[in-house]
Amino acid sequence: MDLLTLSQGLDTIWIVLTAAMILLMEGGFALLEAGFVRQKNAVSIIMKVFVDITFGALIYFAFGFALMHGKDAGGFVGLSGFFMNGDLSHIKLNVSLDTYWLFQSAFVIAVISIVSGAVAERINFRAYILFTIAMTGLIYPIAGHWIWAVGGWLGKLGMLDFAGSAVIHGLGGFAALAAAIFIGPRIGKFSADGQANIVPPSNLPLASVGAFILWFGWFGFNSGSTMSATNGSIGHIAVTTMLSAAAGGAACILFTMFRYKKADPPMVINGSLAGLVGITAGCAYVSDDVAILIGIICGIAMLLATEWLESRQIDDPVGAFAVHGISGSIGTIALGLFAKEELTSQVGQGYYGLFYGGGWQLLGIQTLGLVVVCVWGFSLTWISLKIINKFVRVRVSQDEELVGLDVGIHGVPAYSQEHDFLDLERLKQERPH
Amino acid sequence: MDLLTLSQGLDTIWIVLTAAMILLMEGGFALLEAGFVRQKNAVSIIMKVFVDITFGALIYFAFGFALMHGKDAGGFVGLSGFFMNGDLSHIKLNVSLDTYWLFQSAFVIAVISIVSGAVAERINFRAYILFTIAMTGLIYPIAGHWIWAVGGWLGKLGMLDFAGSAVIHGLGGFAALAAAIFIGPRIGKFSADGQANIVPPSNLPLASVGAFILWFGWFGFNSGSTMSATNGSIGHIAVTTMLSAAAGGAACILFTMFRYKKADPPMVINGSLAGLVGITAGCAYVSDDVAILIGIICGIAMLLATEWLESRQIDDPVGAFAVHGISGSIGTIALGLFAKEELTSQVGQGYYGLFYGGGWQLLGIQTLGLVVVCVWGFSLTWISLKIINKFVRVRVSQDEELVGLDVGIHGVPAYSQEHDFLDLERLKQERPH
Amino acid sequence: MDLLTLSQGLDTIWIVLTAAMILLMEGGFALLEAGFVRQKNAVSIIMKVFVDITFGALIYFAFGFALMHGKDAGGFVGLSGFFMNGDLSHIKLNVSLDTYWLFQSAFVIAVISIVSGAVAERINFRAYILFTIAMTGLIYPIAGHWIWAVGGWLGKLGMLDFAGSAVIHGLGGFAALAAAIFIGPRIGKFSADGQANIVPPSNLPLASVGAFILWFGWFGFNSGSTMSATNGSIGHIAVTTMLSAAAGGAACILFTMFRYKKADPPMVINGSLAGLVGITAGCAYVSDDVAILIGIICGIAMLLATEWLESRQIDDPVGAFAVHGISGSIGTIALGLFAKEELTSQVGQGYYGLFYGGGWQLLGIQTLGLVVVCVWGFSLTWISLKIINKFVRVRVSQDEELVGLDVGIHGVPAYSQEHDFLDLERLKQERPH
Repeated sequence: MDLLTLSQGLDTIWIVLTAAMILLMEGGFALLEAGFVRQKNAVSIIMKVFVDITFGALIYFAFGFALMHGKDAGGFVGLSGFFMNGDLSHIKLNVSLDTYWLFQSAFVIAVISIVSGAVAERINFRAYILFTIAMTGLIYPIAGHWIWAVGGWLGKLGMLDFAGSAVIHGLGGFAALAAAIFIGPRIGKFSADGQANIVPPSNLPLASVGAFILWFGWFGFNSGSTMSATNGSIGHIAVTTMLSAAAGGAACILFTMFRYKKADPPMVINGSLAGLVGITAGCAYVSDDVAILIGIICGIAMLLATEWLESRQIDDPVGAFAVHGISGSIGTIALGLFAKEELTSQVGQGYYGLFYGGGWQLLGIQTLGLVVVCVWGFSLTWISLKIINKFVRVRVSQDEELVGLDVGIHGVPAYSQEHDFLDLERLKQERPH
Repeated sequence: MDLLTLSQGLDTIWIVLTAAMILLMEGGFALLEAGFVRQKNAVSIIMKVFVDITFGALIYFAFGFALMHGKDAGGFVGLSGFFMNGDLSHIKLNVSLDTYWLFQSAFVIAVISIVSGAVAERINFRAYILFTIAMTGLIYPIAGHWIWAVGGWLGKLGMLDFAGSAVIHGLGGFAALAAAIFIGPRIGKFSADGQANIVPPSNLPLASVGAFILWFGWFGFNSGSTMSATNGSIGHIAVTTMLSAAAGGAACILFTMFRYKKADPPMVINGSLAGLVGITAGCAYVSDDVAILIGIICGIAMLLATEWLESRQIDDPVGAFAVHGISGSIGTIALGLFAKEELTSQVGQGYYGLFYGGGWQLLGIQTLGLVVVCVWGFSLTWISLKIINKFVRVRVSQDEELVGLDVGIHGVPAYSQEHDFLDLERLKQERPH
Repeated sequence: MDLLTLSQGLDTIWIVLTAAMILLMEGGFALLEAGFVRQKNAVSIIMKVFVDITFGALIYFAFGFALMHGKDAGGFVGLSGFFMNGDLSHIKLNVSLDTYWLFQSAFVIAVISIVSGAVAERINFRAYILFTIAMTGLIYPIAGHWIWAVGGWLGKLGMLDFAGSAVIHGLGGFAALAAAIFIGPRIGKFSADGQANIVPPSNLPLASVGAFILWFGWFGFNSGSTMSATNGSIGHIAVTTMLSAAAGGAACILFTMFRYKKADPPMVINGSLAGLVGITAGCAYVSDDVAILIGIICGIAMLLATEWLESRQIDDPVGAFAVHGISGSIGTIALGLFAKEELTSQVGQGYYGLFYGGGWQLLGIQTLGLVVVCVWGFSLTWISLKIINKFVRVRVSQDEELVGLDVGIHGVPAYSQEHDFLDLERLKQERPH
């Protein structure tokens, strides 16, 4: 047994274990979303998560990884490694290439899962499959190339995005916003006078455990992004992740007690997640105190963004934009202010934010990168849905929506108290139209 | 700190962490099964999983491990190490013996949990405890000895079964089939004309998260089976595991959309699991592309097998045979065709399948081993149930079955919307007989 | 890559991964408790767990860690390291200080979560936040200092408490008892004649999966407490943990079948947890056989303690005292009898229990430490609640309790079968007063 073998083994199990934790987050997404939507659509949202993890993984294996991490062409896109074949020798890692693919695939599956929440309760299942292919095979991989791949233009500029506040959550969140606007609000969500009606979360305990699973997975998400188990900042990353999540949740407990006179469970759940999203870019680069600050800001901003979306009559059933789009943006920009760790970015230099003597440079780069990535995510999602809509209606029929997608599309209810056997026809009749 | 200590520490945490992941799969089994059965039996199936993990672990500690991994007697059975005492010096590992026991115990608990699904909603609880003792103390350990133990006759022949498509899933699946036939279909499952009635899954979100937890645990199941953290194939194993699962799920999404005109949630859930089962034998030995192929075949075969079982009026409530028995068999045979990795089997040689120049030899050995193990699992289960039935009626009474096993046997309903306190007598009255 | 870097990396990922596992236990607590209480209070108990993990982490970051692990003052309390700043050079670890903080924070969050169960269905949310601050910022840290910190007086005496049967579960359990007595039984729990009424667990499948998640997390809890991945007892710790849990569950299956003529699901769930709690002190110090014995005793003692509490008209909705207080005490005392491992305690000596030639000394120390810690937990909890009650009523109003805390305090039901939109006023009207 020599040192190199040992160090490769250590790095490999670190990546495999953290990748598995990130993939378990799909279970978290499934529960969170199924708990937040109405009972009549709980299975349909979980089926979308199954599309994410199955089609997402296969498409990313076939195309996405190549476009993202293949040999760079002009800083814009990768062009080798389709089906994990071809020249990928520019990727220098202590772990095998396919171990790296596994970790990266867990990321792309997370991105598409963010969008699934925003279109809940009304998207056509076939259209969703096509959109998943577009997102995991094209939209995300290209933006990911810019920031994370060898030769990507934003990475070369010096943009910092440790585990993806911008490229995962910003892009995913703005894609979710585009999709929510494109598909329109659920029937009855807004009254004629513009008033928003409250959709009853069908199962808050499920949603909560979804959040705890996501929280658990996030330790893999952020700490695993070191790609090496001997990276000295792993402990620090895990701590900032924890503190920001705690601060986001605590802020929403106190803020909703102040604003609504009650600690509001869905907001507390989303507040913790907002803290997790917000720290994803900077977990390795900011101090503990700043992590707490980022968590607080992200929690409250998520809440205000949720209210703002409703006032604009945009219907985002699980708060995908407010949690991922807004907190991802805040976390990315925050690095321009607060980065102070001397960890090297991809261009081989330590960077400092505005408040630590680094001047405006990093802030400018972060802002530029964020805007570019979010605009890309928003527009490409809009264009993809526009194109898909020509072939497959993106939105379900009014009948299917009223009956619910579970019985209407997938032919089975999420929950059944039937004592004996299933009578689907009766179920359909009983549901109000 | 020296290299050896470090390498032992690394291997130990690898085994402990992956064993914990496999044991968490019991939570996955519990949810999957509780979600698939009717509400009136949801607790009873979970109680069986508690029997698996409690009695299973203790019996395997007392007897099973010794019969499986004890000093070989004639290639057929181990005969030392009862209660983990006695001579086990023939086991050469980099980790301590009890660490190894932990990992192996997680496996045996998985085997018995496979069977628990097939007898759901109608097995007597006392009989189930007795069968658990038979399976974990005798049936599985002896078959496991043949393939995995030092001196086992199938292992000596050169049979490959990396993490147990044959010995865990094949054996478990055929045992489940025997048990399902022995105990007979649930009352009303088949109409007088032989038509199968659809049992409403009581809680599909629970079943789904069960599947995601199983998926997570499978990374431990397959990658941990290296028994060493510096084994160079860990990354590859995790990737083939992921790809096969994704392919199994995606295949069932598309196939059910084509065949039933709707993506069928229970089939999609089981399709992913079928992909996971199928790759369990070959995860270390086949290429990425073959892993996808195995996943697709297992997913579709699972679906066809489910239909076939119903046409034969065999009632397997959660699809234990279709998922584990069929996919386990396919995965074992597939190695005879597709093995190409130069990893050494227990006899110290690299093996190649038929399509990679290895000729018919490996295919023959795999087929022989599979048949032997499945016949063993089927017959011993049948015989055990036959014997148990002489002492304790294996099937619950008609009354208990109609009321449901939760209230009927365990005296408590799975779900209660009671606002105040429990009135068990009223509950029993209200349930239709 | 040198040996030291490698060994630090290995230890760091071990602590980060096990800390993440322990933090996932909060999801387990949430499910367990939400499943055991009535539906009308399922969200409120989960919100308490969110308070635990958010406020708990932040307060422990600000104050708790300093009082627990800061520079020792007289063996009684630590006094440096507030906000993780200041001199903590006396802590000698192979991992970074903040990595250590993360692991320790997961412990304190577990302690407060134990108490949350005992006050379920009737505590005022604001009062609970204040109590959480007291527990995580003061009560637990000081007791923890005595046993685990450099210079703590019980540790110096030679008290053994490997992963916290005394300091986590004993203290948490007795704090839970104090809180349950202080706040009084739920309305209607005891009839006028003193008869206890059975509260229907709202969701036993949720409670069960909570237990499986706790079981999983416990491998991190106990094995991670080595604080080093090269500690030779990690495998043994995991095995004794597994065996004791299995024995506790199996004992409760058999004992309830004998005593109540049915395997009682909530008792089986709590029996496994009792086994886990009981082995927490001794996992590294006792043999496999003793681990099984401890599990059996703890399972049955938990059951008898539950009955005893009810006979005393003390209402502990999820069995926090019976599981944590009783089993934690048994586990701590058991070490005085059965310790035999030559692992060194904090004072640098191997210790032996009474049955292994160590005489009465260790038994005396264990008993002393246990009594001190439990009395401390009980009294400080009582005093804290007394003080809090002067500012915020600790118990909710009768109206809120009858309506349920979910709708009454948090304004949203846990489960909704509403097909369309939420009508909170109607919900409140419909619930019986």
